[in-house]
Amino acid sequence: MAIISRFPFSQASQTMTESVLDYMTRLGRAAREASRVLARATTAQKNRALQAAAAALDAAREELVRANREDLEAGRANGLDEAMLDRLALTPARIDDMIEGLRQVATLPDPIGEIRDMRYLPSGIQVGKMRVPLGVVGIIYESRPNVTIDAASLCLKSGNATILRGGSEAIHSNQAIARCIQLGLAEAELPAAAVQVVETTDRAAVGALITMPEYVDVIVPRGGKGLIERISRDAKVPVIKHLDGICHVFIDQAADLDKAIRIADNAKTQRYAPCNTMETLLVHASIAARVLPPLTAIYCEKGVELRGCPRTCELLGSHVLAASEEDWSTEYNAPILSIRIVDSLDEAIQHINRYGSQHTDAIVTENFTDARRFITEVDSASVMVNASTRFADGFEYGLGAEIGISTDKLHARGPVGLEGLTSEKYVVFGDGHVRT
Amino acid sequence: MAIISRFPFSQASQTMTESVLDYMTRLGRAAREASRVLARATTAQKNRALQAAAAALDAAREELVRANREDLEAGRANGLDEAMLDRLALTPARIDDMIEGLRQVATLPDPIGEIRDMRYLPSGIQVGKMRVPLGVVGIIYESRPNVTIDAASLCLKSGNATILRGGSEAIHSNQAIARCIQLGLAEAELPAAAVQVVETTDRAAVGALITMPEYVDVIVPRGGKGLIERISRDAKVPVIKHLDGICHVFIDQAADLDKAIRIADNAKTQRYAPCNTMETLLVHASIAARVLPPLTAIYCEKGVELRGCPRTCELLGSHVLAASEEDWSTEYNAPILSIRIVDSLDEAIQHINRYGSQHTDAIVTENFTDARRFITEVDSASVMVNASTRFADGFEYGLGAEIGISTDKLHARGPVGLEGLTSEKYVVFGDGHVRT
Repeated sequence: MAIISRFPFSQASQTMTESVLDYMTRLGRAAREASRVLARATTAQKNRALQAAAAALDAAREELVRANREDLEAGRANGLDEAMLDRLALTPARIDDMIEGLRQVATLPDPIGEIRDMRYLPSGIQVGKMRVPLGVVGIIYESRPNVTIDAASLCLKSGNATILRGGSEAIHSNQAIARCIQLGLAEAELPAAAVQVVETTDRAAVGALITMPEYVDVIVPRGGKGLIERISRDAKVPVIKHLDGICHVFIDQAADLDKAIRIADNAKTQRYAPCNTMETLLVHASIAARVLPPLTAIYCEKGVELRGCPRTCELLGSHVLAASEEDWSTEYNAPILSIRIVDSLDEAIQHINRYGSQHTDAIVTENFTDARRFITEVDSASVMVNASTRFADGFEYGLGAEIGISTDKLHARGPVGLEGLTSEKYVVFGDGHVRT
Repeated sequence: MAIISRFPFSQASQTMTESVLDYMTRLGRAAREASRVLARATTAQKNRALQAAAAALDAAREELVRANREDLEAGRANGLDEAMLDRLALTPARIDDMIEGLRQVATLPDPIGEIRDMRYLPSGIQVGKMRVPLGVVGIIYESRPNVTIDAASLCLKSGNATILRGGSEAIHSNQAIARCIQLGLAEAELPAAAVQVVETTDRAAVGALITMPEYVDVIVPRGGKGLIERISRDAKVPVIKHLDGICHVFIDQAADLDKAIRIADNAKTQRYAPCNTMETLLVHASIAARVLPPLTAIYCEKGVELRGCPRTCELLGSHVLAASEEDWSTEYNAPILSIRIVDSLDEAIQHINRYGSQHTDAIVTENFTDARRFITEVDSASVMVNASTRFADGFEYGLGAEIGISTDKLHARGPVGLEGLTSEKYVVFGDGHVRT
């Protein structure tokens, strides 16, 4: 197997003779042990580690850039495209963001140990729920090195040990970042195995990581749909994930025109690639003739290709192509928008529940009852009234950061922050109580 | 495939020519549609259905007993053992309990639609979380017909459609119960497919139910370990489950002797079969000579076989057999108890985290710091201080009823009631807000 470099601060350095499976098992066992220590680490200790890691990153700017340059050069030599190289690059501004991210997570309230709903039951026992870490979190991601910091900081704050498996093209950058995290852990007297970066680029490491339920409690894959599908299919460990982001804005008949135009513009054109970008615009028939022409002018000016239902085509003429059935369930991640005119709120809700991906959907309306029905009946991780779908992320929701977005319903739904990395156990207090 | 009988009130009657897969797909599709209606059903409507089903059960006592008699006779003819026949029997007292169970669930607060933590973010949007149903819940259980009522009532109250697959030996009883539920649904004008009982005893029905993620959101298996292991292995739908109940009581050096004896007695001997019964007693060395002899007298009088570590054997002599390494990880479900003397709280916690099943563990102590460390560091679904492990169930925890117990950490942990059958989605309110 290929070994890229030794990782001086890690307990997990791999020898040439060790199989990938043995290596990953060793990482897993060390993570499990470290998770026991982290579970009882104090808030002050965890914050000290985060602040010290931030200081270490600040002091290691040159080293980070140097390591990143190695990755960028190798990437260019291996023919990575410009978008990929851009994601890989550690600019001074991105290093600032990582440092700021660590400091922000340090200032978030510690979720661990919170006890809620403690109350007396008829038998005389007192029962409540205590928030605890999940244990060990495995993160599998692609080229962005900043994910190393996002993931490690959220997991550390929530008392979880982490095993990070970044893209092979970012391995030098990730190891340089990991050295800074190690300095932070050491400063706070936390075990080095609290955050471990997988040192091999062998793909078998991923296969091992997702099939060790005895050492890993949950996997968070971040990256393209192909990666996430593969991991979900093969994992023997629970996976927090989202696959598609087919988001809708519905302009209700009671919409305010200005708000509708502002939101439908922003939801599509602020950025084309993110998963929370609108892919389909639904418009109530009674407002279509007033709202679609000014919106079309905006979209055309910004170069957005429009694909409409027959009524949309009739209304907008040559500005719009005919949408196929496939368009309604396509995530373009591109300047393309499908538009459909509907006759009622019911039809809009049905369309969203049928073609959407249960990610993020918004209604624009001034009508109280329509708003209330939309948020109740649309079955998505985020439902919005008079706001752009682009708000659906951890920072905007005040979670401090996000480890990912979930479109599953079990455990965590929507942007996943600290709380999604925790579980709750029952705590029972008695005074010698027995059951009769 | 075998068809036991037609189910007169269900939309899902199966024709002789239909394959099991087609039949289950039809049930799944109907459940998904019904779940949309249930998700927006009012609290009053759901409670009306529960109360009407209770009244229907009360009115159908003779029919229930008759149907149950058919199952019991067939069971006897098929050689079911007495324990099995006892679980299968619908006595007047058990029918009372089912009626009372429905009424209790009707009086529980409706979790659906609850919005929490709604607050303004710096961008000006308001973000909170709304509790929503999971969608469709598949329940797979063995002979107890009362599970039909427990499961259906909790799922209904939490706005979920249910597909119930009971043991083939209880099919007539389950269908008689299901007819009463149907009357309740009809009374409240809720769709019949909100609660569907699988009418075939073909095992392929289970295989289909657990591999339809498009129609089923979660599976709850209830029954023996073999059943649960099979389902967990083969399911393509998330499973809420627990496999083992290896529960501990630790008598700390600062324990009150009376409380220690009362709890260690109750945790083992109140009932031997349940999953929350103690299997291993851990005793601090400094209190062992005072607490173990009186406890041994109680256990011996009740016919509990004791298996001890070497120090326990030395202390208790002929009353105790030598425990093997295997004993520490064995769930006896029988009048057998393993006992180990430890030198510290740390050793007790290590033993529990190593050999336990993360189900329920208790400490008996008057020491505040020991109690606090135990509940923080023992990694189990329920952790208790000065109370019997036997309290770990949904009724005792005030959940009204339980759909099962989870020893997993994701989603639901410990006894699972209404809340474990729900998810939370983000709700965002704005006033035309867009992201910049």
